[in-house]
Amino acid sequence: MAEPTPRTRGSDKTREVIVETALRLFRERGYEATTMRAIAAEAGVSVGNAYYYFSSKEILVQAYYDRAQAEHEAACGKLLDTERRFAVRLGGVLREWVRVSEPYHGFAVKFFKHAAEPSNPLSPFSAESSPARDAAIELYRRVVEGSTDHIDAELKAELPELLWLMSMGVVLFWVHDTSEGCQRTYRLIELTVPLVDRLVGLSHLPGLRGVARDFIAGIHELRE
Amino acid sequence: MAEPTPRTRGSDKTREVIVETALRLFRERGYEATTMRAIAAEAGVSVGNAYYYFSSKEILVQAYYDRAQAEHEAACGKLLDTERRFAVRLGGVLREWVRVSEPYHGFAVKFFKHAAEPSNPLSPFSAESSPARDAAIELYRRVVEGSTDHIDAELKAELPELLWLMSMGVVLFWVHDTSEGCQRTYRLIELTVPLVDRLVGLSHLPGLRGVARDFIAGIHELRE
Repeated sequence: MAEPTPRTRGSDKTREVIVETALRLFRERGYEATTMRAIAAEAGVSVGNAYYYFSSKEILVQAYYDRAQAEHEAACGKLLDTERRFAVRLGGVLREWVRVSEPYHGFAVKFFKHAAEPSNPLSPFSAESSPARDAAIELYRRVVEGSTDHIDAELKAELPELLWLMSMGVVLFWVHDTSEGCQRTYRLIELTVPLVDRLVGLSHLPGLRGVARDFIAGIHELRE
Repeated sequence: MAEPTPRTRGSDKTREVIVETALRLFRERGYEATTMRAIAAEAGVSVGNAYYYFSSKEILVQAYYDRAQAEHEAACGKLLDTERRFAVRLGGVLREWVRVSEPYHGFAVKFFKHAAEPSNPLSPFSAESSPARDAAIELYRRVVEGSTDHIDAELKAELPELLWLMSMGVVLFWVHDTSEGCQRTYRLIELTVPLVDRLVGLSHLPGLRGVARDFIAGIHELRE
């Protein structure tokens, strides 16, 4: 990337206003049709100033990812500090994601086709998205590490990334969820967590360990 | 639906030509921009004739689903008649799907955003898609029923539908797979099948049975 640390440039207040404005315009006009010029005009800053903060529209979306991630972390703090059961921690973190993301649902629906393309820098799997992705995986590491459930040691190391992958499945469902208050996504979480919990509880079984290890290694390789 | 049996109307040859032409135009011009008028003109039939065969563009896409399903079934016949191991049967059926679908990859990429919307009649989960979906689930039932592996009786009844759901995950990956000859999708299949095979092998464990049953019941309910 041309910018060494584009994620931390400029004043927080102005950055916020530009990101908010951009998300609104992306939602209203679509991502392609929204120019940096239009974002600057609507945000009440000069085009040069907008570019000083965000060198491109892509960087603006990355800023949204970073911000949504920070909001999600903050929302999970109390649960992760007080609750010790793996299933409750996981369910809570997934539900908080849906709750925190609610204001961005309209944007996400419009934006989905870009993020779903793995070669796009805005894909959650891209190199460009790695700061937000790493932070999200770190949150799932807290879910795992802070739990008192017995989890097979080998799986424990890989589980945060697997849970993040699973959360991407929930995100995919959520994007297309038109139910009132995204209640179908909450129901999906309620259904999936006990199954994951039980599988994790069985992870010490020798027959499952080897095959899970191969699967994880293969998934890593598929990403490269 | 207005049409009782729109899937079987008219001569097979003309139907084929219209479907082929429609798929090509959808790929070249996009689904929305392609009119029945344009399809008829390119296929060399009158507009009235095109509408006699297919009462709408949606029905044309359903015809593609039906045809792709029939091709897939035919391609799997020999494997399912001769091979008895569950993992080999499942892997073979998934690989054949990728192979048979190769000519439609360009169309699928363009078309994906319609099919991904659950409220769209062209979603694989819609009522309108139920003939192709039921046929696909039936194929996975053959995978299960013809296998000599020990599979928990209760899971056995639900497994065809779960395998079909899993195949939808493979389809989702495939749509976005830009690798040479979709080799990444083949790799995904190679990785996933042993894990599914092992989980099915563990399905008699009491702890897993109850939770799997709840999960399956919940997924049914989420579809409604």
